[in-house]
Amino acid sequence: MPGDLPSELLEQAVNQMNTLPGIGRKTALRLVLQLLRRDEKEVEAFASSFLRLKKEIHYCRFCHNLSDSEVCPICSSRSRDKRMVCVVENVQDVMAIERTGQYNGLYHVLGGIISPMDGIGPQDIEIESLVHRIDNEPIREIIFALPTTMEGDTTTFYIHRRLLQVPRQEPLTFSQIARGMAIGNELEYTDEVTLGRSIVLRVSL
Amino acid sequence: MPGDLPSELLEQAVNQMNTLPGIGRKTALRLVLQLLRRDEKEVEAFASSFLRLKKEIHYCRFCHNLSDSEVCPICSSRSRDKRMVCVVENVQDVMAIERTGQYNGLYHVLGGIISPMDGIGPQDIEIESLVHRIDNEPIREIIFALPTTMEGDTTTFYIHRRLLQVPRQEPLTFSQIARGMAIGNELEYTDEVTLGRSIVLRVSL
Repeated sequence: MPGDLPSELLEQAVNQMNTLPGIGRKTALRLVLQLLRRDEKEVEAFASSFLRLKKEIHYCRFCHNLSDSEVCPICSSRSRDKRMVCVVENVQDVMAIERTGQYNGLYHVLGGIISPMDGIGPQDIEIESLVHRIDNEPIREIIFALPTTMEGDTTTFYIHRRLLQVPRQEPLTFSQIARGMAIGNELEYTDEVTLGRSIVLRVSL
Repeated sequence: MPGDLPSELLEQAVNQMNTLPGIGRKTALRLVLQLLRRDEKEVEAFASSFLRLKKEIHYCRFCHNLSDSEVCPICSSRSRDKRMVCVVENVQDVMAIERTGQYNGLYHVLGGIISPMDGIGPQDIEIESLVHRIDNEPIREIIFALPTTMEGDTTTFYIHRRLLQVPRQEPLTFSQIARGMAIGNELEYTDEVTLGRSIVLRVSL
């Protein structure tokens, strides 16, 4: 009996569930036993959904967002403004911005941000493909929407400088999403760094 | 685009992950995207572990514990005391008692407890198979180790009465684990020392 489980098959399934981030061994066992209570068809649907995703998913060849086809629905949409590209870290960020309903341009998913501590350099993320897009698409404005962390700022800084090197007839416009107090928050409960930045970055009325 | 996900394949995988108890939609997305970062081989191992478990697992034909073979390691062990059977609700409870190292008999996994609120009656759990065992195995003592809840007590009471109806030359001894356990708690979450003492200090009914 490996570990304290009565079955090698159970052990393997629990170990696999346990590889998911934030799922401890006890939770993994609970989830696996819950799966085991289902019909074989349901377990098959559960298992195959992940393998199908891995095998059949595409990364949009323009923006690198996840997609069922070679070009994602946003890049292939006729109603999106193709002159704006919003640079984000990952797929979830695209979804977060889409949920706001406030943006109608395109995206560029970096697939990470520059983080020397984690061994992620500029060559590990989709920067050169953005340079390529700028050369080949009617892009006028780049909006950086990266995390407001040191890594996020470093990445914005790096890409900004890199894109300035691209020879162009008409220069690109660069911006980054506004930083300041969250809407609906009290000053009293806003962290000092954010509040301090909000004062420095005040906008005229 | 169904929901707010950019891909139908992603949507399906997230929906499947979301069926697991305690895994919300946001967590499901995070887990699926983490899976997607792995090699295809790893995703295959992940997915197939659950399907293999479902297809190949056995329920021990004596005690109904999960097992890789027709008879579980406990029932087939020569060193276990085959005169004692500990009646538990589920597989986790067997593991919990095994971890205490205080019990050397056999088990009987009911696969649930009587709970009219959830529509679970005596016919839905492994009671008649226990009656059958008593007729066919050299069992002398039945130890009830069910949750210290109304449903657990009801189940103990029901099975006790049912087993008293079985004609025997030598009467069975009945006990239940000592109520050192905090009332209202589940076996699975009871600390090992308390649970171990509760088995040693079992009281006859």
